[in-house]
Amino acid sequence: MERHFEGELRALKERILAMGGAVERAIEEATQALIERDAARFATVHELEKGINQAHIEVDEACVRLLARQSPLAADLRLVVAVIKINADLERMGDQAVNIAGNGKRYLEEPALKPLIDLPRMAQIVREMVRQALDAFVRQDMALARTVLDRDDAVDNLKDQIFRELLTYMISDPRTIQRALNLILIARNLERLGDHATNIAEDVIYAISGRDVRHGGLADLGGGGLADKESRGPA
Amino acid sequence: MERHFEGELRALKERILAMGGAVERAIEEATQALIERDAARFATVHELEKGINQAHIEVDEACVRLLARQSPLAADLRLVVAVIKINADLERMGDQAVNIAGNGKRYLEEPALKPLIDLPRMAQIVREMVRQALDAFVRQDMALARTVLDRDDAVDNLKDQIFRELLTYMISDPRTIQRALNLILIARNLERLGDHATNIAEDVIYAISGRDVRHGGLADLGGGGLADKESRGPA
Repeated sequence: MERHFEGELRALKERILAMGGAVERAIEEATQALIERDAARFATVHELEKGINQAHIEVDEACVRLLARQSPLAADLRLVVAVIKINADLERMGDQAVNIAGNGKRYLEEPALKPLIDLPRMAQIVREMVRQALDAFVRQDMALARTVLDRDDAVDNLKDQIFRELLTYMISDPRTIQRALNLILIARNLERLGDHATNIAEDVIYAISGRDVRHGGLADLGGGGLADKESRGPA
Repeated sequence: MERHFEGELRALKERILAMGGAVERAIEEATQALIERDAARFATVHELEKGINQAHIEVDEACVRLLARQSPLAADLRLVVAVIKINADLERMGDQAVNIAGNGKRYLEEPALKPLIDLPRMAQIVREMVRQALDAFVRQDMALARTVLDRDDAVDNLKDQIFRELLTYMISDPRTIQRALNLILIARNLERLGDHATNIAEDVIYAISGRDVRHGGLADLGGGGLADKESRGPA
């Protein structure tokens, strides 16, 4: 029975890793479409999201089945509950990648505003956060999970900076408003992707330690105060 | 044992209802602050969110405890899993209310743009969706849960309309850009609140029927195709 549980859990982890890989690729494809001004690449984002949605349903089913058949306890139970939450975050990350594609398509309908400011850098950090959060999950690596929490500040700062810069464009030249607005929305999409990666890292810490580090609880683990990631910044 | 489970489940439902009430109030307070141009009211939103965050941690703990001690099966298990997900959505709805307060504060720093277009109406519909989704959960009312799914289209349409109208302002008078942008972000926050209410309704349908209606699955239940709520519209 125990053995069976381990096997199913390993399969679940692999599934979650694959979903995370698809999310990373979706962010990468959406960003490259913007950089290369190649709207056709957005189609790949939609395809990747379909796969993520399908995996989402299957992982949820597998978790419920695992809870029903094995009635795991303590750390194992926390791990399955963490998978349920991480799965939900990954699904919504797929949605956000699709949102980037939608805003990106509208952006590409007009001439380039100028090189994409810090958006590609922001996308790069977010992709790394996704990777790190899921690596932390699979390896049960608390320190790596905390790294993700720290990096979310960099993402939020970049977003604020991008907002300010684009606002300056809009005010100085009204012809840029529509395009600048699309880039602002993309920055917002990326910020939310960072928030989801942060949520995953928090779930990983919970699964490992049984401690809830959301809502300022990180201090208890000696990591300094953690503000609410989703509530922060001019969102 | 069975009896005990029922009691704990009832307590969980009450807790979830109270969280939903706090979310509704937070949306209401944020909207009234905007309408009355009374930034002081935003403080109430922050207070309400603190309470929601605390409840979120406690409900999560209660769910894990319930799974560990009672090892519920079938419909009961699905219900507890649904509570875990609904709880996560409610917590993020609190974050979105705080985001509205943040954008609202910046909006109120300048003179009124004009009566708040359709934002109050959008907020009203979203509040009703929250109420209905949680009523559907407590009463296990499938029809009511479906109503919530249908209403999300109205919210998305209102948001699109608000976006278009505000864009027109920005282009015709650059002095309105900063304020219009804040209202656009608030419309986006409200849209996300509607998405979360939709997620809750989907979880309710799953808990009742064992059927996953996300990602276009509603047709199977005779309700017509359901597009992905978070992926839709110029987000």
